[in-house]
Amino acid sequence: MGELSEVVAAVRERRPLVHCLTAAVTMNFVADALLAAGARPMMTETEAEAPTLATAADAMLINLGSLSDDGAAGIPAAAGVAVERGLPWVLDPVAVGLAPVRTPLARQLLELRPTVVKGNASEVLALAGGRAGGSGPDATDTVADASQAADALAQRHGSLVAVTGEQDLVTDGSRTGMLDRGHPSLARVTGTGCALGGLLAACLAVAEPWPATLAAISWLTLAAEDAAELSRGPGSFKIALLDQLALLEPDSVDERVGLR
Amino acid sequence: MGELSEVVAAVRERRPLVHCLTAAVTMNFVADALLAAGARPMMTETEAEAPTLATAADAMLINLGSLSDDGAAGIPAAAGVAVERGLPWVLDPVAVGLAPVRTPLARQLLELRPTVVKGNASEVLALAGGRAGGSGPDATDTVADASQAADALAQRHGSLVAVTGEQDLVTDGSRTGMLDRGHPSLARVTGTGCALGGLLAACLAVAEPWPATLAAISWLTLAAEDAAELSRGPGSFKIALLDQLALLEPDSVDERVGLR
Amino acid sequence: MGELSEVVAAVRERRPLVHCLTAAVTMNFVADALLAAGARPMMTETEAEAPTLATAADAMLINLGSLSDDGAAGIPAAAGVAVERGLPWVLDPVAVGLAPVRTPLARQLLELRPTVVKGNASEVLALAGGRAGGSGPDATDTVADASQAADALAQRHGSLVAVTGEQDLVTDGSRTGMLDRGHPSLARVTGTGCALGGLLAACLAVAEPWPATLAAISWLTLAAEDAAELSRGPGSFKIALLDQLALLEPDSVDERVGLR
Repeated sequence: MGELSEVVAAVRERRPLVHCLTAAVTMNFVADALLAAGARPMMTETEAEAPTLATAADAMLINLGSLSDDGAAGIPAAAGVAVERGLPWVLDPVAVGLAPVRTPLARQLLELRPTVVKGNASEVLALAGGRAGGSGPDATDTVADASQAADALAQRHGSLVAVTGEQDLVTDGSRTGMLDRGHPSLARVTGTGCALGGLLAACLAVAEPWPATLAAISWLTLAAEDAAELSRGPGSFKIALLDQLALLEPDSVDERVGLR
Repeated sequence: MGELSEVVAAVRERRPLVHCLTAAVTMNFVADALLAAGARPMMTETEAEAPTLATAADAMLINLGSLSDDGAAGIPAAAGVAVERGLPWVLDPVAVGLAPVRTPLARQLLELRPTVVKGNASEVLALAGGRAGGSGPDATDTVADASQAADALAQRHGSLVAVTGEQDLVTDGSRTGMLDRGHPSLARVTGTGCALGGLLAACLAVAEPWPATLAAISWLTLAAEDAAELSRGPGSFKIALLDQLALLEPDSVDERVGLR
Repeated sequence: MGELSEVVAAVRERRPLVHCLTAAVTMNFVADALLAAGARPMMTETEAEAPTLATAADAMLINLGSLSDDGAAGIPAAAGVAVERGLPWVLDPVAVGLAPVRTPLARQLLELRPTVVKGNASEVLALAGGRAGGSGPDATDTVADASQAADALAQRHGSLVAVTGEQDLVTDGSRTGMLDRGHPSLARVTGTGCALGGLLAACLAVAEPWPATLAAISWLTLAAEDAAELSRGPGSFKIALLDQLALLEPDSVDERVGLR
């Protein structure tokens, strides 16, 4: 079994509990994607309860998406628990650079050295360089534009950095991987990027950051390819994507993404 | 027509208005399940508005799932309205025993004598015995383990208690019913347990607690059996489950669950 | 190409960014409907961030649905940005007249002269006449009952008013249009009314209020007709509706609704 296949199989076997502090608009899809993958989601975001519940988690996702007041207070408290307990965690700094709470919050979280930082090109450029970027949740830069910024972020914070888009780039500051299987349907429904954050956290619970990150991206993009063939439009694509996250044949992952 | 069939038919005919104060992560599925069943959902949870809106409701669901700060304030206020007006109401104490707001809140709500308390085995054990239990939203005990605790809760608070899992147990403290139709697919998508809470409230609006509870559990589990035959994976199962909640043939309910 | 067809084509070409402050229970469906239509959703509702993010938007939706405390503070602040920047915006005053925060908030927003006010008959009567109305989110009056109230609202606030129900009425205070294509399936799933609010905002970003409003209503109702033929029940209808919002043939719109 290839390295990525092993990660997929391990998530299904160990069923990691993933605590998610994530955008209200897509939290249900993130939870369903995690369950479909074989992991278990938990979603409380308040400062009063998230830190306590997080102590039972195997990994954590922090996504700044629609950032509620509850989340703005609960996220730093929960991230502190992740750091203290050595939980792997993912930062998805949605729309960083564009709004006054999430921008300083993302920088504060970066200082806590997330295991993986995942964003689109504009978000990664904004994080690394201090400039504003993007149009709402959408990138206005290409993945290639953000390659140097991703390396710099990775070196500075010891995080693995994943830049997602039509291609997906992964860097730990010394080596860079490129996956070229993104499917355009993924941009036609909400929550696929947020779900990738959840899958990343689930894979980090069972594997080292490099194979975990490649496995999570591969899992989503291969499932998307399969789902696109089974669907008529964005509604049926989204449903088929959940099906295929569950049905993906683990043995085929490395071969399909060209790693063996 | 059997006793449970009559409950299903009455929900469809009377279309009860169910006020839900429920987890953000699954609230949309709860609302869709209620509409599919023929009931009408209403979902405001703030302390400022939930009590006023609840005065128009026929029944209420209180689910402690992702418990927001809005909900933590609005839930006791709305429960007070349910008690004052004699509305039937359901308490679903998700992850009770594991976090510092929901645990005392669940005990406070128990004192108000919910019509039905519904939880997994670990939640029922935590409620009855004061011990922590479960792993996030998941049970770590079996339904049989929780049987005595369920009886004790029912006797102490005058509530009907439903313990859900691979089997579903219902007790009013003197008699016990067991339904054995749970489908494993129900655990592969979010919100099916929360939707059961909504269906329970809808059925309580039109029938006595004992047949209402058996009818709600039967409705969900029979729809799940039908849906599982029509689906490829968890995404298509979830959609088919909504279809089958609407399409369930009421005449067949009692016979299919073995009550006639 | 007919006038309504041009609006549909323009949304798909220009991909307007629509800032939505909308009910938690249906926000994911609103976002998916906007993406399916070709627009781009953005959903932050806090007072701290919504006004800043809104400066990048092409149009705005304000829906009072499950009205959180975050939204109650963020909505007037964001509406102020819409007015200041001349953004077209939609007010969907869900359950106005029935609860103590949304009722004065809706009146305050009306004074800001929304581009379009969209509600069911009971909501429009409540807004215009100061009486309470409706049963939770549902109308207890017919569209015809609300015709005069809609005219009065339109004249008083310079808004276009859309009254939705089995038929849909549109008035600017001097002329009135009636669309008669509503499909009963639209009332069997959550979020279709909220999604119409989002589509209205998207269409207002690319066209004048009169054709934009007729186009948005037509887009949703024609997609619903197509979806109903492809579905077994409410779950599969909801998914097919998203597919058909994306697949609707723009050339056919005017002809199908009888405008040419």
